[in-house]
Amino acid sequence: MGRYRVVFHIDEGSISRANMVLHNIQNLMDDLGEGNVEVALVANGEGVKALLRSPNVHKRQISKLAEHGVQFLACRNSLRFMGLDEDDMLDPVVIVPAGVSELAKKQADGWAYIRP
Amino acid sequence: MGRYRVVFHIDEGSISRANMVLHNIQNLMDDLGEGNVEVALVANGEGVKALLRSPNVHKRQISKLAEHGVQFLACRNSLRFMGLDEDDMLDPVVIVPAGVSELAKKQADGWAYIRP
Amino acid sequence: MGRYRVVFHIDEGSISRANMVLHNIQNLMDDLGEGNVEVALVANGEGVKALLRSPNVHKRQISKLAEHGVQFLACRNSLRFMGLDEDDMLDPVVIVPAGVSELAKKQADGWAYIRP
Repeated sequence: MGRYRVVFHIDEGSISRANMVLHNIQNLMDDLGEGNVEVALVANGEGVKALLRSPNVHKRQISKLAEHGVQFLACRNSLRFMGLDEDDMLDPVVIVPAGVSELAKKQADGWAYIRP
Repeated sequence: MGRYRVVFHIDEGSISRANMVLHNIQNLMDDLGEGNVEVALVANGEGVKALLRSPNVHKRQISKLAEHGVQFLACRNSLRFMGLDEDDMLDPVVIVPAGVSELAKKQADGWAYIRP
Repeated sequence: MGRYRVVFHIDEGSISRANMVLHNIQNLMDDLGEGNVEVALVANGEGVKALLRSPNVHKRQISKLAEHGVQFLACRNSLRFMGLDEDDMLDPVVIVPAGVSELAKKQADGWAYIRP
């Protein structure tokens, strides 16, 4: 387990926002060193689009980050609301009952929160 | 007192943003269970519009959440800046001297922070 | 050292966003009292524009806040990406290797996080 733990939050559906969040994650891991930080991205609302299987311009980047231990979590409530299900999401994505609960729990466990 | 404590932050005036925040709060309480989480919404800047007495498309939703214990806090500095006063706000709303202080204090007390 | 410690985060380049963040910082210090709060602003992404030497409509305000102890931190990764260097930034600005690391470290040290 890393010395730092950081949960990122995305709830907007634009490609530029997804790009910014993924850049932030990469920069954090490059700077602190992969072994020194544990990272999760919680996507809810329109933000779940960033983790769609298709279309997804960041597919390769997400897959690479997942290989390096980044957790990608999508909100089930938001998926339902948008008529999506687990199969519509990229392989590394884990579905959580509610994105906001995940954000609350991780912070209660001492994770830092960053909302790009 | 609940096991989790979460303060939400709104500082934008659009109806879609207010809608997202209120949905987030409802989802959090539904998922964790009302008795397990304490929730506050701090509104500052243009975000105070979400708590106006009128016009307010979310009046019923806010009233219901307040009955279930959600605190609605509006920033006095922001109200002044916008030429509003306490009477312009919905009944459950409590005015705080500065929204940002409230966010700082709650986090210092261990509350999680979520900025939809 | 103050009783409260708060790190603000800006990653958007609009003047209105910079204005909001600086207002938030001023309100926080006015409300809690300068001696009771330690404040930093971390700028990354397009947010580093808020701390440019020129053009900068908030130059005087930033300079005054810096005199009152506010730390202004800009992300080196973001500067490089935008073709800027340290000399392009206002005098009080300190360059940090990665803005997100700074946000993670300060929260791990107990700072509150506010994202206007």
